[in-house]
Amino acid sequence: MSDITETQNNWLSEDDLATARSRLPIVYVDAVPVRVDDLGTISHVGLLLRATADGSINREIVSGRVLYGERVRDALVRHLEKDLGPIALPRVPPSPQPFTVVEYFPNADISGFHDPRQHAVSLAYIVPVEGDCIPSHEALDLVWLRPDEVVTPTVAAEMSPGHGKVVRHALAHAGRPF
Amino acid sequence: MSDITETQNNWLSEDDLATARSRLPIVYVDAVPVRVDDLGTISHVGLLLRATADGSINREIVSGRVLYGERVRDALVRHLEKDLGPIALPRVPPSPQPFTVVEYFPNADISGFHDPRQHAVSLAYIVPVEGDCIPSHEALDLVWLRPDEVVTPTVAAEMSPGHGKVVRHALAHAGRPF
Amino acid sequence: MSDITETQNNWLSEDDLATARSRLPIVYVDAVPVRVDDLGTISHVGLLLRATADGSINREIVSGRVLYGERVRDALVRHLEKDLGPIALPRVPPSPQPFTVVEYFPNADISGFHDPRQHAVSLAYIVPVEGDCIPSHEALDLVWLRPDEVVTPTVAAEMSPGHGKVVRHALAHAGRPF
Amino acid sequence: MSDITETQNNWLSEDDLATARSRLPIVYVDAVPVRVDDLGTISHVGLLLRATADGSINREIVSGRVLYGERVRDALVRHLEKDLGPIALPRVPPSPQPFTVVEYFPNADISGFHDPRQHAVSLAYIVPVEGDCIPSHEALDLVWLRPDEVVTPTVAAEMSPGHGKVVRHALAHAGRPF
Repeated sequence: MSDITETQNNWLSEDDLATARSRLPIVYVDAVPVRVDDLGTISHVGLLLRATADGSINREIVSGRVLYGERVRDALVRHLEKDLGPIALPRVPPSPQPFTVVEYFPNADISGFHDPRQHAVSLAYIVPVEGDCIPSHEALDLVWLRPDEVVTPTVAAEMSPGHGKVVRHALAHAGRPF
Repeated sequence: MSDITETQNNWLSEDDLATARSRLPIVYVDAVPVRVDDLGTISHVGLLLRATADGSINREIVSGRVLYGERVRDALVRHLEKDLGPIALPRVPPSPQPFTVVEYFPNADISGFHDPRQHAVSLAYIVPVEGDCIPSHEALDLVWLRPDEVVTPTVAAEMSPGHGKVVRHALAHAGRPF
Repeated sequence: MSDITETQNNWLSEDDLATARSRLPIVYVDAVPVRVDDLGTISHVGLLLRATADGSINREIVSGRVLYGERVRDALVRHLEKDLGPIALPRVPPSPQPFTVVEYFPNADISGFHDPRQHAVSLAYIVPVEGDCIPSHEALDLVWLRPDEVVTPTVAAEMSPGHGKVVRHALAHAGRPF
Repeated sequence: MSDITETQNNWLSEDDLATARSRLPIVYVDAVPVRVDDLGTISHVGLLLRATADGSINREIVSGRVLYGERVRDALVRHLEKDLGPIALPRVPPSPQPFTVVEYFPNADISGFHDPRQHAVSLAYIVPVEGDCIPSHEALDLVWLRPDEVVTPTVAAEMSPGHGKVVRHALAHAGRPF
């Protein structure tokens, strides 16, 4: 679907990317994958399970950077297919207007959203997925939780604080009070 | 899908509705039906052809009122299925945030959007439709036009001025420059 | 500022309004009054204190209906000036796109937003106010609370559940994580 | 107001910035400066006059990049003050949700928005300015045009095609039909 792959980007070496990350804000997309019913109401939120560097396990939404020359909607589809598999059938919204812009900083105090690696400016979207999902990239598993389950303290504690806030905001944006 | 029908509403007589329309703003939804590709990019906009009372033929988007007790998303699906048929498979967005609010007034000078019958406050959405469309309700036909065709003066002249503006705004909102 | 007053509307008798409220969704606006700093960051949220019919005291945001012939932005200014006084200097946003649409129903189960009197479809906006505020209409007082204070369980318990959700959503929309 | 200045960024040499611009999308903000009345209705749009490298003169909106460690709202205020002077009093909106995201590419065919220097992902906002404006940075002049003047072919021809589209979209977003 997306014809830009990470491979294409190999000429931007790890060193160069590290340098850029210490000097420029990086363009990201955050996608909250959801199952919806025939009326568009969210029935479930999809969370990936990943092992972190320190051995703990985190629940996460789909997130990744936008490559040079790549459109935002291409980046969304690329990251969704990388994480949810090639037949997830994500329904990327027609409009590029995100429901919010999340500003992640190495210093957690600036915005309340923390990313130790970089300053990322992330465009956040709710993306219904209609197909079969097979977590395919560094993810241990994918769970689908009801909106009322996602906002419980137990689940919130298993997510990074930033992703937990993005998910709760996504649900509020979708009219799910909490 | 929607369990509220116009029939249910018959106890609000035509007279009562006429009275209400002369005294209260009426809640409406405007839906711009679109075909999208796998990336969510709009490939075509759907316009209904209708005969007006004076015998002329107009191109229109889907539009109608929200009934008492009905959710906005139910109203969207009801009007889309009424106009595009029962297997149109509209993908109503998860969020109730409209891309704009259109204020139609009997006096065309107030907002630039005119409705001789009423003061309507209309929540406007872009709605991808994935199924087969069979114009089924008072419509002569349904045409699918490319974004560059929709904004031509010829097509614009065949639409009501208000609907033309809503469609152009929808395309701008979807990132289609013109 | 707004040249439409409730008085003008007196010909819609209380009886007629009651009848309409039992048959049609009513167009509302919800405004979350805020103080912002020079960067537009919310420093405080304004909450009105009102005595309810049963003698309890509630914290509330500004809310009210849109009149026949009135623009949404006129309704916002009218209600803000009615509740916060004539020199509150509300800065109504240039765009009519609300941050959310709140659907209040007599049946609390439909949307999670409850209004025993009516089915209201409310366009919700964040509105910075720059002037002096003098609660002037049926309000006992006006308090300005910091975002971290507004989301405490104590304050939440003093608001109607619906207004509490609208305020938390407004803060999330403004990028204030919680 | 903003405590991050271009000076601070000098350690990112022109060479390094040029390299980054050829490899990474750059985070930008586009601001459409407007004068509004007491109801928030746009009365005028502010356009800068600048001499381009080839000697022609262009009308432009405010636009510039977000620096490492800088919040989006700081970047907005910094660029607005740089272009409109220190007492322009821009009213940056409380929410980071832009009205659109503009994707500028060196290849004009990708999105219809062209920037020969870089791939920029620009968050676009409408920003009311309340103070005195003194064009202060590389601008020859600043003109305030009514919405109906801005959309004339004559004015459109004096703007870059991209900025012309952003301004028309901003006006549509603000409910100004055209």
